[in-house]
Formats: sequence, C-alpha cells, structure tokens
Amino acid sequence: MTDQSDQSDPIAGSSSCQIELRVRYAEVDQMGAVHHSRYWVYFEMGRTELLRRQGVAYADLEREGVLFVVAKCSAKFLAAARYDDLLTLTTRIVRMGAARIDHEYELRRTAGGQLLCTAQTTLACLDRSGQIAAIPDNIRGRHEENGDIAS
Amino acid sequence: MTDQSDQSDPIAGSSSCQIELRVRYAEVDQMGAVHHSRYWVYFEMGRTELLRRQGVAYADLEREGVLFVVAKCSAKFLAAARYDDLLTLTTRIVRMGAARIDHEYELRRTAGGQLLCTAQTTLACLDRSGQIAAIPDNIRGRHEENGDIAS
Amino acid sequence: MTDQSDQSDPIAGSSSCQIELRVRYAEVDQMGAVHHSRYWVYFEMGRTELLRRQGVAYADLEREGVLFVVAKCSAKFLAAARYDDLLTLTTRIVRMGAARIDHEYELRRTAGGQLLCTAQTTLACLDRSGQIAAIPDNIRGRHEENGDIAS
Amino acid sequence: MTDQSDQSDPIAGSSSCQIELRVRYAEVDQMGAVHHSRYWVYFEMGRTELLRRQGVAYADLEREGVLFVVAKCSAKFLAAARYDDLLTLTTRIVRMGAARIDHEYELRRTAGGQLLCTAQTTLACLDRSGQIAAIPDNIRGRHEENGDIAS
Repeated sequence: MTDQSDQSDPIAGSSSCQIELRVRYAEVDQMGAVHHSRYWVYFEMGRTELLRRQGVAYADLEREGVLFVVAKCSAKFLAAARYDDLLTLTTRIVRMGAARIDHEYELRRTAGGQLLCTAQTTLACLDRSGQIAAIPDNIRGRHEENGDIAS
Repeated sequence: MTDQSDQSDPIAGSSSCQIELRVRYAEVDQMGAVHHSRYWVYFEMGRTELLRRQGVAYADLEREGVLFVVAKCSAKFLAAARYDDLLTLTTRIVRMGAARIDHEYELRRTAGGQLLCTAQTTLACLDRSGQIAAIPDNIRGRHEENGDIAS
Repeated sequence: MTDQSDQSDPIAGSSSCQIELRVRYAEVDQMGAVHHSRYWVYFEMGRTELLRRQGVAYADLEREGVLFVVAKCSAKFLAAARYDDLLTLTTRIVRMGAARIDHEYELRRTAGGQLLCTAQTTLACLDRSGQIAAIPDNIRGRHEENGDIAS
Repeated sequence: MTDQSDQSDPIAGSSSCQIELRVRYAEVDQMGAVHHSRYWVYFEMGRTELLRRQGVAYADLEREGVLFVVAKCSAKFLAAARYDDLLTLTTRIVRMGAARIDHEYELRRTAGGQLLCTAQTTLACLDRSGQIAAIPDNIRGRHEENGDIAS
C-alpha cells in the first residue's frame, strides 16, 4: 500500500477505517497551518480507502455510472496541522439511507494523538444524468451484513 | 477592480457584500463540477472583500499580529457549479462576539440566479502565539456603528 | 466582467491578452509566497480569456470534443507574489502548428510592474479518444487572419 | 511509513529516491486526468523524502532560516495519470551549486511502469530575508561524500 498506511480498527468493524497521511508543503498556508479547504481532500481519501476495504473501487463505481456527491458537510477545527506532520484519519459510516451515506471523520496528529478536526459529510448517490439514485446493493449489502448501519 | 466585481447590496449594509467570480478549469473535478473543497476558497475571497469594503486589508491585519482562523464551518451543496460559470457570492456577517465572527454565504450562478451553495463559518481571532484574542476595535466598531451585528 | 479585468493590448493584436487577478489566501504557502504550482492555474485563466476574446469558449470546445492538454511547460520564478497582490498576466500565442499551440506568459505585480514570472507552455490538441487531432479551423483561422502566428 | 512507500534505489545512491503515491480525486480535472499543476506538488513530496533519507527534515531547515524556493522548472507530460492510480516518482539530484540544487523527476504508473511525466527544477537557497544564501554544509557534505554530485 501507499499514500497512506492501513490500520485495523477492530472496534468499528468494516464501516470504519483508519489511514495515515503526511501533510504536504503546498497544503499549508502562510500561518503555517493546513488550510481548512484541504481537509475535505483528506476526508475523500478516507472514503476511498473505506470503500476499497469493502472490495469496491470508487473509480469503478463512477465508470458504472454510480456517482456520490457531497450534499452537506460540517467541520470543527480544534488545532492546526503543520507541514510534514503525520496525521491519522478515522473515517466511519454512521448512517446509510436509500440514496445517501453519512460519514464521520476524526483527524489526529499521529504523534501524541491530539485531535485536530472532527467532521461530518452526507453523500448523495446520483446516476449519470445527475438524478438521485438508489445506492447499489453491493455497497448496501456489505453494511447490512455487518449490522452496524441503520438503513 | 479585479478578480471579482463589486455590487452594491443596499439592503444588507456594510456587513454584507457581493462578489462575482469565474470558475477556473483546475477547480472542477472529473464529474464536471466544482470540487466541494474549492468553495471554501471562494468564501475566503468573500471575507477578504467584505473587510476591504470596510477599509481593512486582511493582509495588514496579519502583519499586525491579528489572525483569523476558521474554527467551524458547514455547507449545503444544492447544484453543481461548472467550469467557466460566472458565480455571485454573497457574504454576510451574522454575529460578532468578543473573539469570533460568524459569516453566512450564498453562492448563485449569475445567469439565472440558481442557488448552488449555502454555508456558514465561525472565525476565531488569535494573536501571533495562537491564543484567542479580542477582535480589534477598528473592526468591531464598524459593525457596532452600523448597528446590525449582535456583539 | 469578473474574476479578472480586461485591458486592451494594442501592440499584440488578438493573439495576446492581459488579465488582472488577485492572489487568494489559499494560494500562498508558509513562506508567504504564491506556491509555484498555482501559477499554472493563472496561465490557464489567461488562455481561457485569450480564446474568449477570439469569440470561443473553451468550455464549448470541450463539449464538441476538442481537448487541449498541456504537453510541455517551463517557467522562471523571479520574485514572489504575495497574498492579496494584484497581478497582471500577459498571455501570448507564439506559434501554432497543425495540432499544437505554444503560449508565452509574463506575470507582473500590477503596482509597480515588477516581473514575477515568465513561462511557456505547449498545448496538444486531442480528440475525445485522446488521439492527436488537427486544431479546428475556427481557431486556426482567427490567427491566420491576424497574420501573427506561424502555422 | 505513510503517504508514500519507500523503495531502495541501489543504482542511484543517496542522491535519488523513489516514493509511491496514489492519485486523489480532487487532483483530477474534468478530462479525467491529473491536472498539470498538481505534479509540482508530487515533485515537492519527492524532494522532502529525498532530504529525509539524508537525515534532514525540510521543516527543520525552514525553522533554522534555510529556505529553498523553486527558481526554474520544466516538464513534459507524456500520458495522463488517472484518479486512484498508484504512481512511482523517482527524484534525483543532478547538480548542486553553491546556492542552488537541480533535481530531475520521473513519474511512472506503478502498474506497468508507463512513463507519465519527466521534469526538472532548480531550487535557490535563501535566507530569511530572501537573499541568496550558501547551501548549509550538512546538506552539501552528504552529497560530496557520495561523490555523485558536481559541486
């Protein structure tokens, strides 16, 4: 693996994963902190890896015409992440509806474990025409089997 | 002026401003929509111009050791902005506390006026050491004079 | 107009244009300088506006299956652009081949005119399948009429 | 390790390193290709890791007042990198002067090894005031010991 290391998360089951990532120079602003707009890119990496761990490549989903777009998001920024910091991102599915998925995120500095940011997103599932579409069974099923997601 | 045009907003008074901006190619993802992470960059442009209209350059504030960082944010994405779209962003101060400012944002496609995104941020005022600091009087005062902000 | 102001450039004819843009906070790194990766986004804005002045929207070209991709680029960075600086970008077509266009760029601080960056790009014209394609006549013709581009 | 995996590069010695990285969704444009501006961010990651392998953290250098800025760059883009592609970046120091370092980069798709991009940069060493400064001995010495860099 690359671009982030995988860590098992026995408590959370398959609806959660952790990745590690290193802050890039270009992500930091002139205050010396990761710019708040970059965190959404990190969270998207978390979602990609969570899906991959379920055996699904989001790139394949898009090719099949299943698109997930961010419909809502919110975040609290508690402390600054700095250039070259190693960060640990926990991504968790907290709710799956017919056509939406809610994720929660926790971003910590790996060294020391300080909590830097918490966030939530709601994704909507769309078809190629941009219309709301049902989440495919092969994604939904995995979560229902695990019994940890309200459907 | 440049990089955005200014439009008077007689209803809102000096705690609100509108700017226009054009979507750049590099801001759009492979779905053909502005990536949700980019909107925060637009909102920051809105805050910069709102301050400028009050006679304050944020760049000067930082040089004087007055830093504003995003402590909380949330957004709803209603429709996609596309490459080369002209967008109209309304930025409004909705609350000013001793050391925080809350803004609201409305982003519309200029042609037709479709609402694309609404958002809120809470900024915290910090000093150079990263400690919470009182918002300087020359910023606060402008709003109190206008009588449109709860302090 | 928005996002950049247009300035006539009587010397250069229609194969050149100037735009003005303002440096955004998120474009600046922790040295306080615009990160070198961002300049390519500015240059792309210059190409979009140069085309528009010729009556062509690049967004329309892409919809018609005419894609321009950057095949080569080079730049010299002479001085730092800072947050909130107004910059003047001159974009010039210097050569147009059957399937390529070479542009040159000069980026100056508007106040004082200091030269910050010079750059060159070579674009290749592709069709939707990614194959090299001839540049459409309606783009080529404009330049040949102006007589200022080697074909 | 994280954010990229390390691979030994016995041919090149300590003036070269390889990292692996995975293309993020937000780095890809509406053609489905990594936007040319993002590659410079990858190359910067390569330089950071090459320095780290020499026992130097660039973040520490900056804190000590040793700044490296990109003075010149050039690239050829040969094939598109796509979302979720694993890429292998080779970063090599090819020349070290009194106050400048020249790097070369080769970026390949890990699967299959297709060459996607080659590039060069020249970094200038500056002090905190922005003046050209001699490259510190602890960086220079490592390369001279290795005997593989013209000084």
